Amino acid sequence: METPLRVVVIGGVACGPKTACRLKRLLLDAEVTMIERGSLVSYGACGLPYYVEGVFSDLEMLSRTPVGIPRDADFFRKVKGFKTLTGVEALRIDRRQKTVRVKHLTTGAEEDLPYDKLVLSTGSRPLRPPISGLELDRVWFMRHPEDARSLVKRVEEEGLRRAVVIGAGYIGIEMAEALIQRGLEVSLVEMADQIMPQFLDYEIAALSAKHLRQKGVRVILGERVLGLEGESKVTGVRTDRQSVPADLVVIGVGVQPNEELAREAGLQCAPRGGIVINSHCQTSDPDIYAGGDCVVNRSTDPACRDLLFFPLGSTANKHGRVIADHIAGISSPFAGVSGTAICKAFDYNIGRTGLTEKQAREKDPDIVTAIWSGPTHPHYIPHNRPLVIKMVASRRDRKLLGVQVVGPGEAAKRLDVAATALFFQAGVDQIANLDLGYAPPYSSPLDPLAAAAHLLLNKMNGIARSISPLEAKERMDRGDDILLLDARTPQEFQKMRLPHEKVVHIPLGALRERANELPRDKDIIAFCMLSMRGYEAQRILNAAGFDRVWFFEGGLVAWPFEVWTAI
Amino acid sequence: METPLRVVVIGGVACGPKTACRLKRLLLDAEVTMIERGSLVSYGACGLPYYVEGVFSDLEMLSRTPVGIPRDADFFRKVKGFKTLTGVEALRIDRRQKTVRVKHLTTGAEEDLPYDKLVLSTGSRPLRPPISGLELDRVWFMRHPEDARSLVKRVEEEGLRRAVVIGAGYIGIEMAEALIQRGLEVSLVEMADQIMPQFLDYEIAALSAKHLRQKGVRVILGERVLGLEGESKVTGVRTDRQSVPADLVVIGVGVQPNEELAREAGLQCAPRGGIVINSHCQTSDPDIYAGGDCVVNRSTDPACRDLLFFPLGSTANKHGRVIADHIAGISSPFAGVSGTAICKAFDYNIGRTGLTEKQAREKDPDIVTAIWSGPTHPHYIPHNRPLVIKMVASRRDRKLLGVQVVGPGEAAKRLDVAATALFFQAGVDQIANLDLGYAPPYSSPLDPLAAAAHLLLNKMNGIARSISPLEAKERMDRGDDILLLDARTPQEFQKMRLPHEKVVHIPLGALRERANELPRDKDIIAFCMLSMRGYEAQRILNAAGFDRVWFFEGGLVAWPFEVWTAI
Repeated sequence: METPLRVVVIGGVACGPKTACRLKRLLLDAEVTMIERGSLVSYGACGLPYYVEGVFSDLEMLSRTPVGIPRDADFFRKVKGFKTLTGVEALRIDRRQKTVRVKHLTTGAEEDLPYDKLVLSTGSRPLRPPISGLELDRVWFMRHPEDARSLVKRVEEEGLRRAVVIGAGYIGIEMAEALIQRGLEVSLVEMADQIMPQFLDYEIAALSAKHLRQKGVRVILGERVLGLEGESKVTGVRTDRQSVPADLVVIGVGVQPNEELAREAGLQCAPRGGIVINSHCQTSDPDIYAGGDCVVNRSTDPACRDLLFFPLGSTANKHGRVIADHIAGISSPFAGVSGTAICKAFDYNIGRTGLTEKQAREKDPDIVTAIWSGPTHPHYIPHNRPLVIKMVASRRDRKLLGVQVVGPGEAAKRLDVAATALFFQAGVDQIANLDLGYAPPYSSPLDPLAAAAHLLLNKMNGIARSISPLEAKERMDRGDDILLLDARTPQEFQKMRLPHEKVVHIPLGALRERANELPRDKDIIAFCMLSMRGYEAQRILNAAGFDRVWFFEGGLVAWPFEVWTAI
Repeated sequence: METPLRVVVIGGVACGPKTACRLKRLLLDAEVTMIERGSLVSYGACGLPYYVEGVFSDLEMLSRTPVGIPRDADFFRKVKGFKTLTGVEALRIDRRQKTVRVKHLTTGAEEDLPYDKLVLSTGSRPLRPPISGLELDRVWFMRHPEDARSLVKRVEEEGLRRAVVIGAGYIGIEMAEALIQRGLEVSLVEMADQIMPQFLDYEIAALSAKHLRQKGVRVILGERVLGLEGESKVTGVRTDRQSVPADLVVIGVGVQPNEELAREAGLQCAPRGGIVINSHCQTSDPDIYAGGDCVVNRSTDPACRDLLFFPLGSTANKHGRVIADHIAGISSPFAGVSGTAICKAFDYNIGRTGLTEKQAREKDPDIVTAIWSGPTHPHYIPHNRPLVIKMVASRRDRKLLGVQVVGPGEAAKRLDVAATALFFQAGVDQIANLDLGYAPPYSSPLDPLAAAAHLLLNKMNGIARSISPLEAKERMDRGDDILLLDARTPQEFQKMRLPHEKVVHIPLGALRERANELPRDKDIIAFCMLSMRGYEAQRILNAAGFDRVWFFEGGLVAWPFEVWTAI
């Protein structure tokens, strides 16, 4: 009788259980052991902010199946057929002997687990910023169900009121919303001059931050946190400019891969961290696989050679399948990641895929961008909402490079279509041609993503001459001798305005007749509520012989700065 | 001075205005005239069922801009810069003289409009079924705002109670929902043995029809309507099996292209109807373009040579852009259609793209299909809902051929991703690799579309052995000596069951221990609520040495037939 294949999986949260479960379905006789340092396995850590927010009240749901069965060692043994050891830490790998030295944390006993194939799914851990006071009471990293449980318990029992969240990445924003929804006062402190600095371009981040502020979050940008204040309990957060009072602090400044075990075993790791894997998730030792938050990924864009640390539950899940398949002799190569991410922030959906403008410019300055804003549905459909899309493309070959979406409108659908298009190295022309599902409850006849592609094509073809809201604001602030042409209706103009003395209001319908009121010796920057009438104004003025006309993209909906509104 | 280019656009609803508007933005000096037989132009006909339903109450919204400006001749002149003639019918085209003979319907006067470029956007008209009684009062075709206005008015004023909708295509289903929401009794009569026979496979249609019935629609399938009954007002619908009482009748049995003008001018039309165009929307006369509902489209799949009559507002909009661009000297070739369509039916979203199984089998029998059902979000997210996805692929090259989605879960997003993947001739393996946006408010870590692709791959790789619900039902009905293995929890089993005497209930967690209770000489068909535990049961039994094990796809959620439920 053949000896069954022995597989040891280190790490039991996401990629680990996925690998082990699938492996047992593929190789019915394999002897699979999953070890986990903590007491819980297979929990949905992404759900923690939603528990804090009160979206669901039973934290146990995060570690149960949809029908309520705990995903514990017993479940994995009975249902999935593999062994799970909790409270067991992997100390080191002996690649020659093919064993893992493990320690049972409750007893302190150590043993060697032999393996034929080893899977590292050791995950990541929160970055600890180099500041004082991290050891104080009422300071949380949001990583484990226990973090969320204790935070909620103490907020309720001790009536904590003032929260400071350090770091405006995804976790920071989700936690800021969660704590506001719980009724706390929330300050969000970010060192960069924008929220989500790794993920969004400045103006998209500014638009998102504007929404956070409207929802009551005090967003503090461009301030470095120097330390946490307080004796035993935290009482404040000291930045390089101020001290922000705090009853509790949540730190979300990023995560780093748990790669030490791999590094010590001599496996190749990326210079900036993360285990390096091939498309089958093999490390530099072909008998050792790695997946999930502890690895770096390649880009789905074959032209991109960067290694991307982009830890996400979705990717961890894919890695698990790829690893199990390869161990079982099935080739299911992993194509890499496109840099897709999405985050809910109150009524806004904020997503991105591919490269931001900033990232794209670092690789190749010859790019073109467009910011489009518009409705997601016909205007007679009540759930119609505005959406802002920023599209980045290569000017030379007209390939899509990246998309950012933000706003109350249905953003996730457009993000996923954009991510799919990127995966296939789509040209912008192709995006305009996609045959997407249309019926009034679901979309405008022309999908927002196609509309954004049209704007970009119009720019590339020299028909639309537009500038970004950022450039418009710079020209306004600089005191340039420009004229801002508001092409909206009088009713709209009564309700909301751009607060600038150089705004001239001529509704689009009157522009052909009244064009001669405008000066020919000034730069005219047209705009409207969204993107369309500003563009039409530009074309109407072009037809009337005006050469120095632009419009600013996205209109007032995408304007990340102040506007004047009638009370 | 150069003579400006004269462009005549025939038809003012969707493609026509889009063409004229864009053309004036591109060619600032062009002389563009749009003619329309009716009195309204540029209205959103797709919105009619939603007006009937009461989703919005001001029918004028359909022919106004989002800020409330009527899209009439005055608007198009002032804002867009072209001439619109309403109440003007095109009688014939003189291609040699390059003129269109038109008739002013109010005065009866005729004249010739000269053109350099002519655009046919003549749309489509409802098919009139060959039955008696179409001339009766209270019989509606739902095509023009006036149809919706008069229907709602008379339902309200005359207290009409019983509606019969003839034809279970998209319009029929939307109207059935609209009338139920208005409080009427609704029968939906369809000649085929399923709803949406052109669009869906039988079991997906059956699942949708089950939902329509749950919402109170009396769905009558497989009955041919022979005539409408009544003296002056309609009183009933006579089929080949029964007479259905009716206070009003809505007919939605399809549309046909208005191609007569083109055909009489000698332009190439498809044998089964529709003007033939090239990728620039040029007809067989290069100075005459056509777009919108009056044309046939090519498929985005280069291997497909069929001409597709697939009239949709989204496609009409794209055609308009392509036509205007080509007239202006810009090449923006239209890639064709992928056969994407979506329809809301109460709480269900029903969509499809590419080929159905039936359509695919007609082209190449070597295909493989999978029906997956599962949640759209993590189970702790309250707006998590189930979704059913049917995927059709070529077995030889593993290319995706088509996708159908149905259920209360977020379907439109997955449909659009599938349509995008199809556009790029994706392989099923690639769909499993897409980097789609993941955060708990938006999706499960493994997107439903990727999960469906996994099932299909597992089938192609011989790991999952599954049959469709249809095949399972056939085997049950045939009295085959099979055993149905319900792998759900006791709690689930208490609430809902498959009503069949051969069901054995063993929860998945007990199956490894209790496998020996099962017979080895019978075909075992496992199932669960969704798709996963049935599959796991198959693998567990395989591991225990059972060879004759399958699971039926999609579980009870995708089961289109009766189930027993505890009250």
